Amino acid sequence: MGTMTEATSGATSGATSGATSGATGAAGSSAESGASGSAAESGRPRRGRPGYDQETVLRRAIDLFNERGYDATSISELARDLGLSKSAIFHHVASKEELLAAALDEALDGLSAAIDAAVDEHAEGSAHDRLRATVAESVRILVAHLPAVTLLLRVRGNSEVEQAALARRRVIDEKLAALVQDAVAEGALRDDIAPDLISRLLFGTVNSLVEWYRPGGALSPEDLAAALTAMVFDGLAPR
Amino acid sequence: MGTMTEATSGATSGATSGATSGATGAAGSSAESGASGSAAESGRPRRGRPGYDQETVLRRAIDLFNERGYDATSISELARDLGLSKSAIFHHVASKEELLAAALDEALDGLSAAIDAAVDEHAEGSAHDRLRATVAESVRILVAHLPAVTLLLRVRGNSEVEQAALARRRVIDEKLAALVQDAVAEGALRDDIAPDLISRLLFGTVNSLVEWYRPGGALSPEDLAAALTAMVFDGLAPR
Repeated sequence: MGTMTEATSGATSGATSGATSGATGAAGSSAESGASGSAAESGRPRRGRPGYDQETVLRRAIDLFNERGYDATSISELARDLGLSKSAIFHHVASKEELLAAALDEALDGLSAAIDAAVDEHAEGSAHDRLRATVAESVRILVAHLPAVTLLLRVRGNSEVEQAALARRRVIDEKLAALVQDAVAEGALRDDIAPDLISRLLFGTVNSLVEWYRPGGALSPEDLAAALTAMVFDGLAPR
Repeated sequence: MGTMTEATSGATSGATSGATSGATGAAGSSAESGASGSAAESGRPRRGRPGYDQETVLRRAIDLFNERGYDATSISELARDLGLSKSAIFHHVASKEELLAAALDEALDGLSAAIDAAVDEHAEGSAHDRLRATVAESVRILVAHLPAVTLLLRVRGNSEVEQAALARRRVIDEKLAALVQDAVAEGALRDDIAPDLISRLLFGTVNSLVEWYRPGGALSPEDLAAALTAMVFDGLAPR
């Protein structure tokens, strides 16, 4: 149980795994400021006064949702946190739910694209190689969108927006499970563990990264993806 | 990303991973009713009217904390949920924090005992074998105390009780990390992944079980522990 001490990530202490409070907030806002800029540069409409575009509001909302919980975070608090009036926030977004939906879509879009590329009928390579590439890509997406993925993994289905996200996640999970099944069927994964259980353990290991990994430390996303895939795929090799 | 479809655990759908709401509540209360009985039998004082001893209140409180969040759950709601008056609850417990402390201690006591046995100076066997046994035992503890461990893994350090739990967890993590380091040093684990990262991945995989495993399904705790240890330790074998 538990994860570990400071040395690996550098950015946060082991004790705050299971916790996103201060650490995620800090890591998230610094890590995501680049993404915010590039989204604006890529031509997405930018409204409101400089420095407070929709992306900035969304980044901060995601951090607050992770720190305090979605239900416990109000638009008033978000406005106060950003030093804006409530009406200024509503200039950027129609509702708190819209922010949640945007955050969950951000997490789901990358993951959907990764698995869809792997299970496309024109995809090349063995099921094993495509699965391994999907796991590595999932790690990269998780790191690049850490606050949004953290939020996604905590969604409980308490509203239509959350239920829609869970439905999308279920579709992703089913495609992943089918890919694992194909890899077992081609003899590239051990057959003494049920494919469904392999799938659970595999993506459980990936998902658990949100509890402790913070970008910007000594461990690069590529090294993280390489170590994780090495451990799980060596461990799942046919016996 | 994501975990999997229904087949593995039977008790809950894959889509509710990351969610403990309904599923955990149900699984928790049925799985823990045995524990409640044995606690009473083992001589712990049993107060209040029949059927509403401290254990019953604690089990229900843990489920509500997991479903709604600790901050969002009031003693009034707990009382209403149990069909008791608020003063009847206070006959059993002094405060909401006392319930949280009891839940976190329940999760931490088993985990502490497991790692302490493994790192005791009189412990027998290689570091590798003791680590493997500790991982398997951690899976068993997680399953036997699923609601309490789920709560522990979500603690953010928002109060003294939570900070004390995080401090205990940090001690456990440090002992686990030292045991991993010993196993690498004796040449029993691969040395191309840093020991700290091994420790993170290993216990991340264990901790991720709370997101999807529910007792009472087709997959027994022993089979789960065997599959998980097989995957991770085969994957961590020296290359």
